[in-house]
Amino acid sequence: MSKPPIRVTVWGEYRHEKKNPKVAALYPGGMHETIAAFLRKQKKLQVQTATLDEPDHGLSQETLKNTDVLVWWGHMAHGEVRQEIVEHAFSRVQEGMGLIALHSAHYSKLFKRLMGTTCSLKWRESTDKERLWNLRPGHPITQGIGDYFEIPMEEMYGEPFGIPEPEELIFISWFTGGEVFRSGATWYRGNGKIFYFRPGHETYPTYHLPLVQKVITNAVFWAHTPTSVLDSCPNVPPLETLPEDPEKNTRPQEGFR
Amino acid sequence: MSKPPIRVTVWGEYRHEKKNPKVAALYPGGMHETIAAFLRKQKKLQVQTATLDEPDHGLSQETLKNTDVLVWWGHMAHGEVRQEIVEHAFSRVQEGMGLIALHSAHYSKLFKRLMGTTCSLKWRESTDKERLWNLRPGHPITQGIGDYFEIPMEEMYGEPFGIPEPEELIFISWFTGGEVFRSGATWYRGNGKIFYFRPGHETYPTYHLPLVQKVITNAVFWAHTPTSVLDSCPNVPPLETLPEDPEKNTRPQEGFR
Amino acid sequence: MSKPPIRVTVWGEYRHEKKNPKVAALYPGGMHETIAAFLRKQKKLQVQTATLDEPDHGLSQETLKNTDVLVWWGHMAHGEVRQEIVEHAFSRVQEGMGLIALHSAHYSKLFKRLMGTTCSLKWRESTDKERLWNLRPGHPITQGIGDYFEIPMEEMYGEPFGIPEPEELIFISWFTGGEVFRSGATWYRGNGKIFYFRPGHETYPTYHLPLVQKVITNAVFWAHTPTSVLDSCPNVPPLETLPEDPEKNTRPQEGFR
Amino acid sequence: MSKPPIRVTVWGEYRHEKKNPKVAALYPGGMHETIAAFLRKQKKLQVQTATLDEPDHGLSQETLKNTDVLVWWGHMAHGEVRQEIVEHAFSRVQEGMGLIALHSAHYSKLFKRLMGTTCSLKWRESTDKERLWNLRPGHPITQGIGDYFEIPMEEMYGEPFGIPEPEELIFISWFTGGEVFRSGATWYRGNGKIFYFRPGHETYPTYHLPLVQKVITNAVFWAHTPTSVLDSCPNVPPLETLPEDPEKNTRPQEGFR
Repeated sequence: MSKPPIRVTVWGEYRHEKKNPKVAALYPGGMHETIAAFLRKQKKLQVQTATLDEPDHGLSQETLKNTDVLVWWGHMAHGEVRQEIVEHAFSRVQEGMGLIALHSAHYSKLFKRLMGTTCSLKWRESTDKERLWNLRPGHPITQGIGDYFEIPMEEMYGEPFGIPEPEELIFISWFTGGEVFRSGATWYRGNGKIFYFRPGHETYPTYHLPLVQKVITNAVFWAHTPTSVLDSCPNVPPLETLPEDPEKNTRPQEGFR
Repeated sequence: MSKPPIRVTVWGEYRHEKKNPKVAALYPGGMHETIAAFLRKQKKLQVQTATLDEPDHGLSQETLKNTDVLVWWGHMAHGEVRQEIVEHAFSRVQEGMGLIALHSAHYSKLFKRLMGTTCSLKWRESTDKERLWNLRPGHPITQGIGDYFEIPMEEMYGEPFGIPEPEELIFISWFTGGEVFRSGATWYRGNGKIFYFRPGHETYPTYHLPLVQKVITNAVFWAHTPTSVLDSCPNVPPLETLPEDPEKNTRPQEGFR
Repeated sequence: MSKPPIRVTVWGEYRHEKKNPKVAALYPGGMHETIAAFLRKQKKLQVQTATLDEPDHGLSQETLKNTDVLVWWGHMAHGEVRQEIVEHAFSRVQEGMGLIALHSAHYSKLFKRLMGTTCSLKWRESTDKERLWNLRPGHPITQGIGDYFEIPMEEMYGEPFGIPEPEELIFISWFTGGEVFRSGATWYRGNGKIFYFRPGHETYPTYHLPLVQKVITNAVFWAHTPTSVLDSCPNVPPLETLPEDPEKNTRPQEGFR
Repeated sequence: MSKPPIRVTVWGEYRHEKKNPKVAALYPGGMHETIAAFLRKQKKLQVQTATLDEPDHGLSQETLKNTDVLVWWGHMAHGEVRQEIVEHAFSRVQEGMGLIALHSAHYSKLFKRLMGTTCSLKWRESTDKERLWNLRPGHPITQGIGDYFEIPMEEMYGEPFGIPEPEELIFISWFTGGEVFRSGATWYRGNGKIFYFRPGHETYPTYHLPLVQKVITNAVFWAHTPTSVLDSCPNVPPLETLPEDPEKNTRPQEGFR
């Protein structure tokens, strides 16, 4: 008996591609379609896409319920994502849906909601080369990645990055201009696994790079968790015999005070 | 030259005390006043209180700006705390304000906002004894606390507690009814230090217990951090010479793709 | 093409079973054989055993090299395990071999070597019931385990447990006698994953309990990592052009000092 | 009543200084004396030194017992440090002695003993500039340090660094040659606090730099903890009434098996 496929939803803001010819040339069907395309090469993944301007941003409750791993890329329109949709996605992460937050998704409502911090950073659009160093050669996310890999030109992100201490720091980036950045990191929230991956500015062909695709593909498999349980706040009976209560609840005891 | 005092604001919801005579008898001036009173015994602390029904819940921007450590107790009226005030307090934590979240504050908007999780748990109002085990005898928060201490009767909180993995797990509670709970734990968010401390149901005289007071007092000193810096997202120039750009930004390179 | 099986070595001290008829009655072929037997029911696992009194304690370099996950139970004879064998096993963990440390293995040379702490704890052989609470319902190690499970009688282990803060705290135990214990926890060391699991005193039939077997089986699958790389300390050339050296190395610069 | 001073012991290997005129010129009394000298400017610190070639390497049990924070620099003679002394220092860390491990102390017996990993890294003696980025502007260790600081020339250390995930990552270094390194990080072991700080190759005047001195000074204050307790493994009586034992310990129960 074979396992069911992992259901992946790749969410793209899909605005830069419509406004900037350079971006459109790099990602003709949108960045989400480029990402979905390389994920679809994995037969164990069942991949769909969703975008901001669809009804419910393409993320209806039904869609989220049937998503095992959500990949998120957004930038110029973070503010247009409805809070209600953010809360549904947040709850699904708590239940066990994985989240891969890409590049400028560091400032998405969903990622900030899960981190509990500002998620601020330094940045510069320029001609920096980025070299990502692999800190965890034995981690599922870095399989097939060597000691490091390079991206010929990328937007720079620099420290301090306003995140909670990661559970696992996977990559640190070196930039030509003199900065460093925690460019791959994991966190748990509820039953869900989260991976933030820095590369992917819209004006560069970053998501066409084989090793970038490899990391994202690995991360999708890593982020898939076995269960879906949303915790609640139940009133429960005791499992062991409790002492009798001589009205202790209603009057403070001398000896207690 | 002596250091300036640590400025502490003890926030109390102050509703149970007005509605339930049992609570009023235990905490005549409100729970916040009981907590403020024992903190005021420390000459290095400068303590004020604030409550829900004051203008801005007693937490104006000016007040928060001048607060080094915020102690929070709330329960029945979490929903009435205005989101705007929560956001100001959240930003102050990122800047470096300490937060001591007490008991049912696990479900306060502020604590949940900082955790990025549900903060759910099991519970039971009953006759349970709680024994708190000290996991970190060398930690500033546990100084003066022995191997464990007991609370004769308390509301039970049980696992799973929907929190991110704590930076430091300080106390685990044993309950007569058969449950356990991570009853003392720390996290960093931005520059701010957070301590969650479980005990303190309103119908018990918990905050009159010397060791409970000791833990909260220690935690206030621990949570005080040296600086107050709110991070931002600055665009920065390079520190090193960058390669020239032969229109690289405008046209994807063959070799790159 | 199917994946190769996971190669598991179950190491047992195998002394109590020979000296104590009660233990022998519970574990006729030795505790390691009971553990190996339930693991062998998994067709994806290839399981062998090794014991203290075999040459090299059954852990030759060849055996360790061909072990993906090592399960360890030891108690009365920790001191007889040769340091050389401990170092080989330690290096294999750094390379990526998983380790499941059971019960009194908290005091084994290998586990202490990996933790960097005392690994001390409180204990009592008595009639305590142990109830293990599941803190991570979405974790691979807890699949098939509910909210909690019980062991009718077990040796008590109590906090403080002298370990580094776990990467993930999976189980906390409640004991009848009033104690708590971090009874399931994970750490990474190098490329290797480590799981400590508390239950399993030799005078109780703990390893015959289905849920204990379930946890250990899950942990073996969890601890298996994809690679085997032992890090070294290489001298490396620069990847970018360095400034020329006007004897900077040989004479301290004025401006520098 | 004023607090007693913090008792600091600065340990230096003191071999390079005797063999290499360049090192001797930079550190006439030895590196340990340079470090001790700037720490002595703090009136709350009481500073002594110890070196490898003294009896017991200058670290008698009495000396260690009276040391609150140990600063360690060693390199070429790690192998000559007696294991017995390492174990005493290890136990003192568990009790609460702080440890500041400098530069090549990453490979000292004591640091490796506490980490439980290889502590390997990449390295290069060359003309690299090192820029240390401050990830935690609110941390006691980074007070007085800005966004980053630079060392004009230093030995390069590169990732992957074979350490357990730090409790707090404080600094990441950028090197001219294209590498990055986790150059400031903290861990807890037992009651002791540990800070690893990368800079300080013997052929450079690194310990004369004001900001390097500032970090080490801050770290000494940070690493001082309030207590001194070495844990043990006590047999303890129950705190609650246990069920009677109908020879349960001697015969496995049907219902149990």
